[in-house]
Order: sequence, then structure tokens, then C-alpha cells
Amino acid sequence: MKRIKIAAALTAETPLAGVLVKGWVRTKRDSKGFSFLELNDGSCLKNLQAVMDHTPEIVQTLESIGTGASVALTGDLVPSPGKGQKWELKATGLTLIGAADQEAFPLQKKRHTDEFLRTIAHLRPRTNKYGAMFRLRSELAFATHQFFRERGFFHVHTPILTGSDCEGAGEMFRVSNLDPAKCAGMSPAALAEADFFGKPAQLTVSGQLEAELLALALGDVYTFGPTFRAENSNTPKHCAEFWMIEPEMAFADLTDDMDLAEDLVKYCVRWALERCAEDVALFANFVDKDLMPTLEGVLAQPFVRLPYTEAVGILGKSGKAFEFPTSYGSDLQTEHERFLCEEHFRRPVIVFDYPKEIKAFYMRMNDDGRTVAAMDLLVPRIGELVGGSQREERLDVLERRVAELGLSREQYWWYLDTRRFGSVPHAGFGLGFERLLMLVTGVTNIRDVIPFPRTPRHLEF
Amino acid sequence: MKRIKIAAALTAETPLAGVLVKGWVRTKRDSKGFSFLELNDGSCLKNLQAVMDHTPEIVQTLESIGTGASVALTGDLVPSPGKGQKWELKATGLTLIGAADQEAFPLQKKRHTDEFLRTIAHLRPRTNKYGAMFRLRSELAFATHQFFRERGFFHVHTPILTGSDCEGAGEMFRVSNLDPAKCAGMSPAALAEADFFGKPAQLTVSGQLEAELLALALGDVYTFGPTFRAENSNTPKHCAEFWMIEPEMAFADLTDDMDLAEDLVKYCVRWALERCAEDVALFANFVDKDLMPTLEGVLAQPFVRLPYTEAVGILGKSGKAFEFPTSYGSDLQTEHERFLCEEHFRRPVIVFDYPKEIKAFYMRMNDDGRTVAAMDLLVPRIGELVGGSQREERLDVLERRVAELGLSREQYWWYLDTRRFGSVPHAGFGLGFERLLMLVTGVTNIRDVIPFPRTPRHLEF
Repeated sequence: MKRIKIAAALTAETPLAGVLVKGWVRTKRDSKGFSFLELNDGSCLKNLQAVMDHTPEIVQTLESIGTGASVALTGDLVPSPGKGQKWELKATGLTLIGAADQEAFPLQKKRHTDEFLRTIAHLRPRTNKYGAMFRLRSELAFATHQFFRERGFFHVHTPILTGSDCEGAGEMFRVSNLDPAKCAGMSPAALAEADFFGKPAQLTVSGQLEAELLALALGDVYTFGPTFRAENSNTPKHCAEFWMIEPEMAFADLTDDMDLAEDLVKYCVRWALERCAEDVALFANFVDKDLMPTLEGVLAQPFVRLPYTEAVGILGKSGKAFEFPTSYGSDLQTEHERFLCEEHFRRPVIVFDYPKEIKAFYMRMNDDGRTVAAMDLLVPRIGELVGGSQREERLDVLERRVAELGLSREQYWWYLDTRRFGSVPHAGFGLGFERLLMLVTGVTNIRDVIPFPRTPRHLEF
Repeated sequence: MKRIKIAAALTAETPLAGVLVKGWVRTKRDSKGFSFLELNDGSCLKNLQAVMDHTPEIVQTLESIGTGASVALTGDLVPSPGKGQKWELKATGLTLIGAADQEAFPLQKKRHTDEFLRTIAHLRPRTNKYGAMFRLRSELAFATHQFFRERGFFHVHTPILTGSDCEGAGEMFRVSNLDPAKCAGMSPAALAEADFFGKPAQLTVSGQLEAELLALALGDVYTFGPTFRAENSNTPKHCAEFWMIEPEMAFADLTDDMDLAEDLVKYCVRWALERCAEDVALFANFVDKDLMPTLEGVLAQPFVRLPYTEAVGILGKSGKAFEFPTSYGSDLQTEHERFLCEEHFRRPVIVFDYPKEIKAFYMRMNDDGRTVAAMDLLVPRIGELVGGSQREERLDVLERRVAELGLSREQYWWYLDTRRFGSVPHAGFGLGFERLLMLVTGVTNIRDVIPFPRTPRHLEF
């Protein structure tokens, strides 16, 4: 008998005789003469209800089955007389696959805190909430690939190990294959020489620079992979390891960039609402009562596009007592970002044309000589979801910026080289995938949207 | 005028008036009264041929245009009288976007060695061969996602930063945010305590252990991400950083695992032949004359399934003078793997049931007590493409193996825990994505199938 997954059983069009299902028991209820098992196999949120008459064999097997046990059931899929489900399994065969000690199993049927569930991240995917989360994560990853494919982008793999620092921010992890015990007393030069790559290596903070190289050959490309920050701070929005989506388009300017970011966010939100309604409903019901209006608000109208200077003006006139003051030249903080999209405009906002002093060296200088063609996409409850820019394609301007910021021309020779040979206007952005999931689920802590979060002093699992 | 990509122009169904194309000049030829430009924008292998009459403006612009320059062209897409193309562009407008110094530009029209092109990995995607390679890479990445989606697998993201060693092989990169200059004289314990995670951290060699945790909740899952080996060896098959596809199936055994691996490889080969014919043809014409028969051979019949013991027997009786002798208990070397599928069976071979001594602790012990339910999929020219196993789901057997191999029960507490609560038979494998690309293109060096390869002493770009 071929096994059928529960997602397929629950959406069957007709009754099915002689089916085999396997999964984990969520609850067991005994009545006089028969028992119910609620079975989940991870294929969907809903359980399959199995009803079985008490034969001597079944009664005996049921004794060793409790919440968390894995079982195989055979029987017929029949219309359910109960509420809330179309089908149930009239089971005649029950086999225990793996027991679960009821004293020790931590996921008994009760509400657990997110903090507790993080300490058992190996088991939390078996709960309704985290099962729904990781199915959604898979769906939105696929939606991302589909989005770019429909638009003729190529998926490229940029390196994780790098000798250069894309953002110039410095908060990078170092990578080495040397035994620290054997490095005492060695000079930095000797250490670098002895190391795997013959020079210092770090974990990338962004695949952008390499994605640019590929965009300047293949046209439109994107990366989707892990990136790293060694920031020793504990916030609900930061992990040391997170996944980032970074498109890069040749022959494109900042407007194209803003259009693409808006399209991608709307595409993913629509995908979640249309294709993952059951899992999204769990979050709307139990996590964030405002989730549906928030997501519908993302889709309802064009995002606001607001020059940075005007954003600072609005914040200054807002009358709000912000923790951080705003003035021209200061970066926007989460409180400012949230005010703009939650209170002032009540929808997503793209702020663009930032002062060059607060942005990276590769961003294209505007004609005013003071601002660069950068943009940040801000969304309700999260703030910055996307950061992007048109890149400086003019060799002389780029070399001047590299010199001004004290960066090494030698280190970036290959990057500069692309401006020497058939340089073209191009633009791209980075979208934090975990933040997209926070937007789509209403979950407020990044630790709860990634299976095994890495944060300061947390490397378990 | 909206830009059209060259892939779309070349597959147009009717002539198109008033089109705009942008791209990089591959060649320029001047005739009396008119000139030809071959334009490529990365969207496909083929160039668009543009023909333009010599107006004074065009003649002047042409002077500053050579191979590698980026240009914009406007005109009409018309039937081409020339051979080899259906359409050409009758151009009336020509704009230089970015020049390319003809003295300095390294990609003049001639054949370059792969070795030379590796030194300019930032420019090699602009060649026919590497453009085709990275488009194929993108296509096969998408094919992989599509394959698993059709079968109800969820895509999961397992961590890169880890405190445990999946394979127990030890060749791992260490990760730290400490300044080495400030670590002199610190004890290992003090170093670990001072470090970002409060304990030693490494780059993962496999997402399998974490993928198992997710499979034991969601059912069928897969990872597709970078993995790392700090092996200080220079071979054509090894990189320090490479991408791996790792499915993991709950309620599955070794036969299911072999079926899945065979299906995946065939699916990707078929995808390449059917959807990437033009790019594959480049490799069949210029890289490997046997490519098409090899790929058709992969699809032609079921893969051989061969117990390890029989494989050793065949090798012993082969009469071949292998560099490494084979006897029961020794691991197969590439020469043995290639002999089996290239000479003996002439098709892909899955070897299974290996001696426990040469395989990892998590593989399921067979009833003979000597072998484990492991399998390697071997393909022509490459050898091992896939390595997988059914996992040991029995807590007592697994704990015994952990003890036998001197591993730390405490370090793997979460892994063992899943065998305590609703354990189920499950299986999975790892497929090296770069090796799949080597199979599909006939390229023999892994450095030429990944955009920016990381190998000992090579960290450029």
C-alpha cells in the first residue's frame, strides 16, 4: 500500500479505500468502544483525524501511544461527521513506529513560550506555529526564485569566504584553519602567510560586489544565500547569520531598483496570502491580530517614494518625542522608519537620495554632489526591509570615492576593472529574508523565523 | 522606447519596428558604406547582429567603439539575409554607454586558456563559455527547486556556523571575531569564552544533522547551500567552498534514497538537454566531444545498484592495474569509481551497503552488524556525485555507535533526542552541485563551474 501524505488526504476529491498514512500523534482521545488519534505529518497545518474501533490488537497498541509518538495507520478515507474537517480516516490498522516517553516529551498539548521553544529548536518545528513558519519560509524562498525567473534574472552563487569587506563596516567574522594554540607569538604577516588562503579571510556581509561582476556579463542576476555580521548586539532584528536576497541589474537606474523592490515584496506577500492561506491564518489568529490589514495594506496601493531630505523634514515637524533626534545627515533609526510607514503614511515607504556620508562607497553620486542614489524600503513594524542603490559606474568618480574613504585600490582592482571595460549604469539591493518573514507572519523576533538562530553566545544545534 | 533583451529579440515571432537593445560589443566589422556589430547582453549565448548604414553620427560614434564596449542601439528587427540567424537589427541609432580600451581589454576575440581566465574571473562571465556555464548553473539550481517542489519537499535553511562536526572528519574552518593579535597567551578555554559564541565555532561541512531535525517534523525537506572543507589539497574536484543539495526524507529507507538520487540526477540532465540546448551544445562542441552520448547514457536506462562487496569483487577480478589496491574494507578511489561506470557497466552505478568502518556514525547499521545502509552514486568521468544513507533511527544503536567512535553524547544531545520522541526511519543524501555541473558540461575542473572558486591560497575577487 502506497503512503499518502496528509495534505493530499485532506484535499482528496473522493473517498479513498485502503490508504496508508504515517505521522506523529498530536492527541489521543479514548471513548467507549473506540478511540481518536489526531495525526500530523508536517505536510500541512491540519491534522488528520483517525477513528478506530477497539479491537484487542488496537487497544494493546494504543497503550504505548501518546503525544509525539510516530505511527502508521491503514484504513479508509471517509466523509467526517465531525466539524472542521471534510475527511477522516476510519482506521483498521495501527502500528507504532517510535514511542515518545510522556514524562519526558516537552511538547505536551499546552501553550509554550517562544523563549522556551528556542531552547528546544530541534523539536519546535513539530508545533503548529513553527511548522507553519518553516513551510512559509520554504514557500517564500520558492516564490523568490519564481519571481526572478519570470523576469529573466539568473541565479548566481557569490562566495561566502572573502578577502574584501563590501560595506566597509568592519563587523566581520574571521575564518582560519590554523590551530590557535600554535599561533602564539606569530606576527600578523606570518599568520596570514601560514593560513589556508595565504591572507586574512572573512565571512561575507554581502554578495553585492561579486553579483555586480556577474550582472555586467549576464545582465540581470540575483543571489540568495547566507550572510554574516559579527555584531555583538542582542536585538529582535539581528542575527549573526541570516539569508539575503540580492538582485543586481545591468542597464538600470534607481527608479528601476525601487520598482523591482516594490514588485518583489508585493509578489511575496500575494504569494503568501493566495497559496499559504492556512499557515498565514494561524499567525493572524494567534500572533498578530493586525496581520491581515497590514498585508492587505502592502498590496493596496503604490509604496510612497520620498527623498531623504523630505523624510527628515516630516520627522522634524512630526511633534513626536523620538529617542534619537533627526537632522540632515543622520541615519534614520527604526523608530523614525516605523513612524513614517505606520503613522504618517500608513503604508510602505521608499526613502531615497541619502547624504553620501552615511552610505557606502559604491553608491552612485548624484549631480548635487551631496547625495547618493541610495534607497531604503521601510515597512510597518519592521522598518528597513530593503537597502539598495544605483552603483557608481563612472571610473573616475568611483576611484575618487575609494580614495576619499581611505579604501585600498589594490584590494578592489577587479571591481574597478569592470568600470574600465564597457561599464554600464546598474543597480541592485539587498532584502533580508528573515525580515520578509517577520512582515508576512507578524512574528517580532528574528530568532523565531529561522530554524536555528545564531546570536551572541548561541550556537546550539 | 522599452528595451528588449536579445534572447527575446532572437526568438521574436514577427519583425519588430522601433526596438531598443543594450549590451556589450563582441565584434565590429566595417564595410563600404555600412558596419556590423555583434551584440551580446548575457540573456543568451547568441549575439544579435546589428547592421547600420554610415551616417556621419554613426561613423563618429563607431570610432570609439571596440570589443567589450557597451552600447545602446535603436532600429528595426528584420529578417536576416545572412546565415545562422533568423533576425538582425537594422540600426539607425547608436549610443556609446561605456568604452573599452582596446589595448588593455583582455578578452579580445581569440581562444584563452581556462587557467588564464581564472585570473580574470571578474571578466570571464563575458565569454561564450562562461556565460553558458553560469546560465546553466542558474537553470540547474531552479530545476533542483522545481524537482523537490513537485514532490512535496520543503526547502529549509540549515546553519553555516556550527559547533558540531557532522562528518567527524575534522577538516573544518574555524570562525572567530577575536583579533588574533590580542589572543597571544590565552588558553583554549579563555579563547572560547571570549569569542562571539562563547565556544569554538566552525563552518559547516554538511547541513544534514539539522535537516534531519526538520525532516522529523515537516516530513520531506532539502537544503541547498554552501558548505566548506579546509582540505589543503589541490585537485580538480575539490574546492574549499562548494554548494550542496541535501534532501532528507522521513518514513524512508535506503531504497527510497537511491530512487530519489537517481530521479534527481536524471531530472537535471533532462532539464539541461531540453531547456538549455544552446548552452549545452557549446560544451558538446568545444569542451567534450563525448558529452551528448554521456548525458544520453545517464537517461537511457536504470542506474546499476551494486552492493559494496560485489563492487570490490568486480574490481579485484578486473585485471586492471589500479594505483590503489582494493580489498574489503577499503574505500573506493576515483579510479575504481570511474572503472565501474565508464568501463564495466558503462552507465551510472549506485554502490550500497558499505563496511561500517569507512562510513559516518549516523548511518543505519544493517542486520549483518558489519555494514551500514550507505550508498554512493558514481557517474562517468567524475566518480562520486552523491553520498547518502539511511540514518540510524534506533536510540540504543545510535548511542552505541557514538560511544564506539568516541564522540560526545553531550554535543549531540539534540540529535539523540529526536530518537527519543517519535523516531522514524529516515534517509537522505548530499549531492555536490558543482560536480553535477561538471557532469552536465563535461568541464573537468571544479574551478571552472563556480564563479569565484576558493582553493588553497586563492581568495581573489
